[in-house]
Amino acid sequence: MSYRIEKDTMGEVKVPADKLWGAQTERSRNNFKIGAPASMPLEIVYGFAYLKKAAAHTNCELGVLAAEKRDLIANVCDEILEGKHDDQFPLVIWQTGSGTQSNMNVNEVIANRAHQLAGKVIGEGEKTIQPNDDVNKSQSSNDTFPTGMHIAAYKKVVETTIPGVKQLRNTLNKKSEDFRDVVKIGRTHLMDATPLTLGQELSGYVAQLDHGIKALENTLPHLSELALGGTAVGTGLNTPKGYSKRVAEYIAEFTELPFVTAPNKFEALAAHDALVETHGALKQLAVSLNKIANDIRMMASGPRSGIGEIIIPANEPGSSIMPGKVNPTQCEALTMVCAQVIGNDVAVSVGGLQGHYELNVFKPVMAANVLQSAQLIGDACVSFDVNCAVGIEPNKEVITKLLNDSLMLVTALNTKIGYYKAAEIANTAHKNGTTLKEEAINLGYVTAEDYDAWVKPEDMVGSLK
Amino acid sequence: MSYRIEKDTMGEVKVPADKLWGAQTERSRNNFKIGAPASMPLEIVYGFAYLKKAAAHTNCELGVLAAEKRDLIANVCDEILEGKHDDQFPLVIWQTGSGTQSNMNVNEVIANRAHQLAGKVIGEGEKTIQPNDDVNKSQSSNDTFPTGMHIAAYKKVVETTIPGVKQLRNTLNKKSEDFRDVVKIGRTHLMDATPLTLGQELSGYVAQLDHGIKALENTLPHLSELALGGTAVGTGLNTPKGYSKRVAEYIAEFTELPFVTAPNKFEALAAHDALVETHGALKQLAVSLNKIANDIRMMASGPRSGIGEIIIPANEPGSSIMPGKVNPTQCEALTMVCAQVIGNDVAVSVGGLQGHYELNVFKPVMAANVLQSAQLIGDACVSFDVNCAVGIEPNKEVITKLLNDSLMLVTALNTKIGYYKAAEIANTAHKNGTTLKEEAINLGYVTAEDYDAWVKPEDMVGSLK
Amino acid sequence: MSYRIEKDTMGEVKVPADKLWGAQTERSRNNFKIGAPASMPLEIVYGFAYLKKAAAHTNCELGVLAAEKRDLIANVCDEILEGKHDDQFPLVIWQTGSGTQSNMNVNEVIANRAHQLAGKVIGEGEKTIQPNDDVNKSQSSNDTFPTGMHIAAYKKVVETTIPGVKQLRNTLNKKSEDFRDVVKIGRTHLMDATPLTLGQELSGYVAQLDHGIKALENTLPHLSELALGGTAVGTGLNTPKGYSKRVAEYIAEFTELPFVTAPNKFEALAAHDALVETHGALKQLAVSLNKIANDIRMMASGPRSGIGEIIIPANEPGSSIMPGKVNPTQCEALTMVCAQVIGNDVAVSVGGLQGHYELNVFKPVMAANVLQSAQLIGDACVSFDVNCAVGIEPNKEVITKLLNDSLMLVTALNTKIGYYKAAEIANTAHKNGTTLKEEAINLGYVTAEDYDAWVKPEDMVGSLK
Amino acid sequence: MSYRIEKDTMGEVKVPADKLWGAQTERSRNNFKIGAPASMPLEIVYGFAYLKKAAAHTNCELGVLAAEKRDLIANVCDEILEGKHDDQFPLVIWQTGSGTQSNMNVNEVIANRAHQLAGKVIGEGEKTIQPNDDVNKSQSSNDTFPTGMHIAAYKKVVETTIPGVKQLRNTLNKKSEDFRDVVKIGRTHLMDATPLTLGQELSGYVAQLDHGIKALENTLPHLSELALGGTAVGTGLNTPKGYSKRVAEYIAEFTELPFVTAPNKFEALAAHDALVETHGALKQLAVSLNKIANDIRMMASGPRSGIGEIIIPANEPGSSIMPGKVNPTQCEALTMVCAQVIGNDVAVSVGGLQGHYELNVFKPVMAANVLQSAQLIGDACVSFDVNCAVGIEPNKEVITKLLNDSLMLVTALNTKIGYYKAAEIANTAHKNGTTLKEEAINLGYVTAEDYDAWVKPEDMVGSLK
Repeated sequence: MSYRIEKDTMGEVKVPADKLWGAQTERSRNNFKIGAPASMPLEIVYGFAYLKKAAAHTNCELGVLAAEKRDLIANVCDEILEGKHDDQFPLVIWQTGSGTQSNMNVNEVIANRAHQLAGKVIGEGEKTIQPNDDVNKSQSSNDTFPTGMHIAAYKKVVETTIPGVKQLRNTLNKKSEDFRDVVKIGRTHLMDATPLTLGQELSGYVAQLDHGIKALENTLPHLSELALGGTAVGTGLNTPKGYSKRVAEYIAEFTELPFVTAPNKFEALAAHDALVETHGALKQLAVSLNKIANDIRMMASGPRSGIGEIIIPANEPGSSIMPGKVNPTQCEALTMVCAQVIGNDVAVSVGGLQGHYELNVFKPVMAANVLQSAQLIGDACVSFDVNCAVGIEPNKEVITKLLNDSLMLVTALNTKIGYYKAAEIANTAHKNGTTLKEEAINLGYVTAEDYDAWVKPEDMVGSLK
Repeated sequence: MSYRIEKDTMGEVKVPADKLWGAQTERSRNNFKIGAPASMPLEIVYGFAYLKKAAAHTNCELGVLAAEKRDLIANVCDEILEGKHDDQFPLVIWQTGSGTQSNMNVNEVIANRAHQLAGKVIGEGEKTIQPNDDVNKSQSSNDTFPTGMHIAAYKKVVETTIPGVKQLRNTLNKKSEDFRDVVKIGRTHLMDATPLTLGQELSGYVAQLDHGIKALENTLPHLSELALGGTAVGTGLNTPKGYSKRVAEYIAEFTELPFVTAPNKFEALAAHDALVETHGALKQLAVSLNKIANDIRMMASGPRSGIGEIIIPANEPGSSIMPGKVNPTQCEALTMVCAQVIGNDVAVSVGGLQGHYELNVFKPVMAANVLQSAQLIGDACVSFDVNCAVGIEPNKEVITKLLNDSLMLVTALNTKIGYYKAAEIANTAHKNGTTLKEEAINLGYVTAEDYDAWVKPEDMVGSLK
Repeated sequence: MSYRIEKDTMGEVKVPADKLWGAQTERSRNNFKIGAPASMPLEIVYGFAYLKKAAAHTNCELGVLAAEKRDLIANVCDEILEGKHDDQFPLVIWQTGSGTQSNMNVNEVIANRAHQLAGKVIGEGEKTIQPNDDVNKSQSSNDTFPTGMHIAAYKKVVETTIPGVKQLRNTLNKKSEDFRDVVKIGRTHLMDATPLTLGQELSGYVAQLDHGIKALENTLPHLSELALGGTAVGTGLNTPKGYSKRVAEYIAEFTELPFVTAPNKFEALAAHDALVETHGALKQLAVSLNKIANDIRMMASGPRSGIGEIIIPANEPGSSIMPGKVNPTQCEALTMVCAQVIGNDVAVSVGGLQGHYELNVFKPVMAANVLQSAQLIGDACVSFDVNCAVGIEPNKEVITKLLNDSLMLVTALNTKIGYYKAAEIANTAHKNGTTLKEEAINLGYVTAEDYDAWVKPEDMVGSLK
Repeated sequence: MSYRIEKDTMGEVKVPADKLWGAQTERSRNNFKIGAPASMPLEIVYGFAYLKKAAAHTNCELGVLAAEKRDLIANVCDEILEGKHDDQFPLVIWQTGSGTQSNMNVNEVIANRAHQLAGKVIGEGEKTIQPNDDVNKSQSSNDTFPTGMHIAAYKKVVETTIPGVKQLRNTLNKKSEDFRDVVKIGRTHLMDATPLTLGQELSGYVAQLDHGIKALENTLPHLSELALGGTAVGTGLNTPKGYSKRVAEYIAEFTELPFVTAPNKFEALAAHDALVETHGALKQLAVSLNKIANDIRMMASGPRSGIGEIIIPANEPGSSIMPGKVNPTQCEALTMVCAQVIGNDVAVSVGGLQGHYELNVFKPVMAANVLQSAQLIGDACVSFDVNCAVGIEPNKEVITKLLNDSLMLVTALNTKIGYYKAAEIANTAHKNGTTLKEEAINLGYVTAEDYDAWVKPEDMVGSLK
């Protein structure tokens, strides 16, 4: 492999000749061989591209950067956002906790690529654009990285997570309406209980997801606050007057998302409670989705020796040894995602609680977990939706049989003959393996006519359906 | 000990003669000898008292309960809320996961105490009030327990947690203003960085708590939704028309809190995402408070061989072996609380994700953890406030010394001579153990006059203070 | 209330006249009003009693404490261990993170009670025994508290947790043998699978608990290491020669447990990885028990519209609204315990990871969580055992029906006709709602005789049963 | 792109012509578009290669597979283990929870590649080797996937984690010996305490890691138990006699690791407590490493306004805005890894606790988290070692100054003049800003000669160094 020499304040470093990055990126590559290469999420790189472009525009507007430099920087940022340089960001999550070298990676790539765009050869002549003095002007890793991660997380949440959850929510809602008249047995403690409709059951899932989406949306204002303009410790040292407000406006314009400058930059650098807050809502969604997926696989269990009240699509052969087996695989993928998200929540908390003084140095791990969870929930909801939820159908034969067998229909008698006598009927039928009606009459508590008039499953599901 | 006989649908049970509870409470005491006795939080019992009273009023108003019974029930509920029967609720958290026996415990105590209030002797004659048919009328454990836990949690959050956090927030805010002109060294990565004021540093904590309070308040609407009226599976079986809305209004009236009936009762029984949501915000506060308390103890460390920039109150001898030692004990208590809350969050999630069909049966453990976390955060903030935060004072002598020693003041030169030359000055001073000014002049980059004009810590803290 | 004056190095404090504690305990009571009073586990107080007695004996033997003082101290320790002074330890978990005031609480109670035993009146005359110079001789909070918590945790694990888990394990093992010939359908992915015996199924639970007990026992050597002798920072300052080894021997003798002095006292003060380790094994048991309890409630679900393959004891009326309902309440209590333990594990980790320099100051919260988890698992296993596991019986009628309906018996044909043809048979039977045998013959793949010879559930359960 | 047709029991599927996989792999790719592609760890694929080869050998030896087929299968497995087919495994973690399609992916690749090795063209003619009937013979996904993940996890732990931790442990141990005479101030509660040596301090870290390694090694026996031979539900259906023991022997031979067949196959399929157990030990190491890294960065803080007792290597420019700044970046990477591992532990637990009946279907997520944590800890320890730990040096000037300033040296006087008078000396010196010696003499408690004789830091560090 051929190399060129790049320099930073510590001296010279050999960098692969075909790469756009510089000395600090290369140092970080060598110093942090931890886990898979290039694990730093590209979404954060894109977040940086937005903010570097916004900073260049603001710096120019405020008179501290030449228009030519602004344009060169902005052009490279656009290239990055088009995905043209994805292979120029080789660093890992497990680097310095401020993401300094990822900031420098972006600075270096922009500077070198700008040099090319200016018609020059990398490594030859003075850099057209300086990574620190130009690209990083009015910035610090300490305010750019959190800005980049807020941009990345916000975008992921509104572009992937919320649409994914809503898609599933809408399907479940439609199914809830479709099945509004399918009366089935309810189950509490996993035991037979009074009836409800399948539509009602699904409406609970819809309500869960509605609450989860709302909880997630509640966290967006905090996430919309950008640290940029705080520079090293939050005071905004080395920024021109008016910079922080203006740069946030540019970011809002470029991303078409409602970002604002953080009212308190000290919080925005030293704590990442916004990520904790957002991930808390992702975790809540994971808790909800686990419940929903688990219910669905239990209701679909069988086909002959389980519950079998609903039928879900058969998408693949389910077993390498048991011929003809079909499994609730989408439920499994989704609940595995939920397990991961619930674990990630702890990782985010453990990172969040260990900020020291003016800086939290768990930025990359916190951001990576938020991004992973947001992606997984969004993707898994879509996968679950198209490969499972849209195909859910009631197995009416089974539903009717299980409903009519149930002893808990006796609850309808409470208001007629009292809880104690009703219990006696149910207990006797259970003991004797008989029906409620038989024992209700045998015990002399209810006539056959009254029984038929009073115990109607379809009347027991309320007006709430 | 003397006993009386109580009965339920399973038969007779011996109950201590001096206790108001009945057969089902006694069964539960015997069947669940797990952990400390009476661990079910009293706040939940009080939540039940509110709802039983509200149910009695609603049932009477809707024509299904006699006014005399309503009054007897309401009177006992008032006694419970006055704390007169605290020793009548012996059950543990680790019982049936729907809290059925805690519901029955309340029903039985109300029925027996009502019998007394009616001038009769417990165990003699027919019960004036039936625990199931009267006290529990139009109710199920499945909707009462979640209602009781929502009432308890909501009250705890608004009466203990939020006031406690706000008290600390206000003190930190006042200190932030008091110390707005105390310029000190900043620290990032625990390393010397550019300066800021102590007031700015504290303002970051205030912003954290403001965000935390807002996040917690965001969860209150979900928590204000009451399951009552859903009865066994959410359909509202055996409730009179109009019941669920009316009973929530009564609860709102009695508690003076904005409770409403849950729009979807299936969600309200089968999932407790509202608790997950509220605890998520408590966890966020724990993350914030851990950061704040940790900073304060690091800044107060010493007295001679630590950082020593601030002085905190000495409240007790700090060591049983080292004479004269004083420790940041309030920081320690607060951070221990944070550790507990972060753990509790996982317990709540693990409970929340395992709801099955129409019922989540992790209600007691979820509620107990929310209540504990809400209590601990509120109490610990008050304790930290009155015993530590109000007494924080800057040690100006130390602050000034550490500020002036710092090499990071060199950052002010970036915009004058560029990052690379500034770095050379700092590195040389570090290597030689000299001052920035000496090396700036030696290296010929800056004159003494310019240095003095450009490197002023008080000018480096921005207008953000 | 009447008071007396107690003193410490900070001055005078008013203490309730009827209490044995002194100035520092009282300061701590007032300074840490967080959560329920007296939350510091009594088990830790008892751990202190053992170590204070052991220290007195060692100090005397090594010539630094008079025999009269040793005896007075030892006598009070014995009284504490008899439970005579349980109400003299009012402090909370949420105090100084070294537990200093709990150490002083014990020192003060011993000193004052010794004064009484010496025939004097508390508060009159010079103290017969000094809390710091005598009771705390050769000790520091920093080595006594971790010693006390190791003693408490070790005892709890071997006296409560392990016996509880073993009791349940033995019942499950007996049931596994009892049901060794009960062939039933297996379920994977909650879906019908090839058969196994109920005994085999239960044997898996036994294996889980055996592994869990072994994992827990693996942690005991670390937990047996005592910090005592390290004093303030681990160097053993102010201890007589030979002290640390001898005092551990005394503790081993008094507790009849194999405690040893920690080979490295710096680790024993600054880190509590032993608690992390032990709790990790408790968490593993929680994971196992959750699986077991969950299976049992699913298999017992019904009685008519669930799985219903086993019958578990009916211990209490299951519903306040549904008459005759019986629920798997022991499963619910146990799984709630599991949720708590899994959460506690995170609390222990968060405490454990934040040790600073020579001391971890999350001792009380770590110890309290370990003790709670160890107690809850032990108690819940016993409760589950006596109220549920011992009564598990197969519902053979249901088992046989579900077994014979299953399409997965087709797997037995794989080795005869290949996976693809076997799959075709199963799929066709599923589609047509017919039996495997019918379709096997219809499709011409198997004769009736061969089918009967090849597809025998009892031959499909292997020799592993 | 060109395609060929592959078939499974559900019908035909188009597969990219240049890929070796078959119908089921392609179905899974399309049905599970969740997160990054090909996220299923390659280590698990390699685990499969070992076991498929072992199964082929065993099947042949036991007379159920032809030698030619055995050799073809074994040859492909060897190619896979040489990394020749890494791009043939495109599936994700978030698939069916039994990893069925990953098992089939391996089966299909082996079958198609074997077809090539037999000189034929994929897609033409009957398959030389059948994926289900030959490659998967005597196997099920349910026993192969857990076998593959145990092989992968065991290898990762013994080849990456333990060597990495030991490397760091050995460096710290060497440093501990190097610095055995460097007396420094101790710190408890972050406050000045009695002295110890830097060597002693580091010895505590060594002891932590020794305990952590031991804890991890304790989990290996459970991890060495292989599920293979249990097939679908643990009964070993469709395996020849002697299979399970023999196949484990082959795996042990091929991997040169002490694998054994699991004594209880039901546990080995339905629960993955072995992964929970191993990850618990990884989490313990994370807790330990977080403490160690945190201490080191605090001790290295400064360079002028922090603690500054040790010097760590400067590996990269620390700031994009503050020239000359150097940060403890290896500490940050390591503690971020710790945060991730602590979170992963919860993901593993949440997966582990949700096994149902005969199968746990959280296998991929559990295995992926164990592998990630094991990799990250091993890598991060090596990175921390070579880039930080080996370069740790004491800053003796600072150490001596901070030591001599300390008021806690007064503790040496406890045994001479008692705790109370010693406290008075320390408190007076603290108040007056004077030295202990001055005040000791002023107060008349100690002569200058005695002071010098009694208060010697080097005598206060015990014989434990």
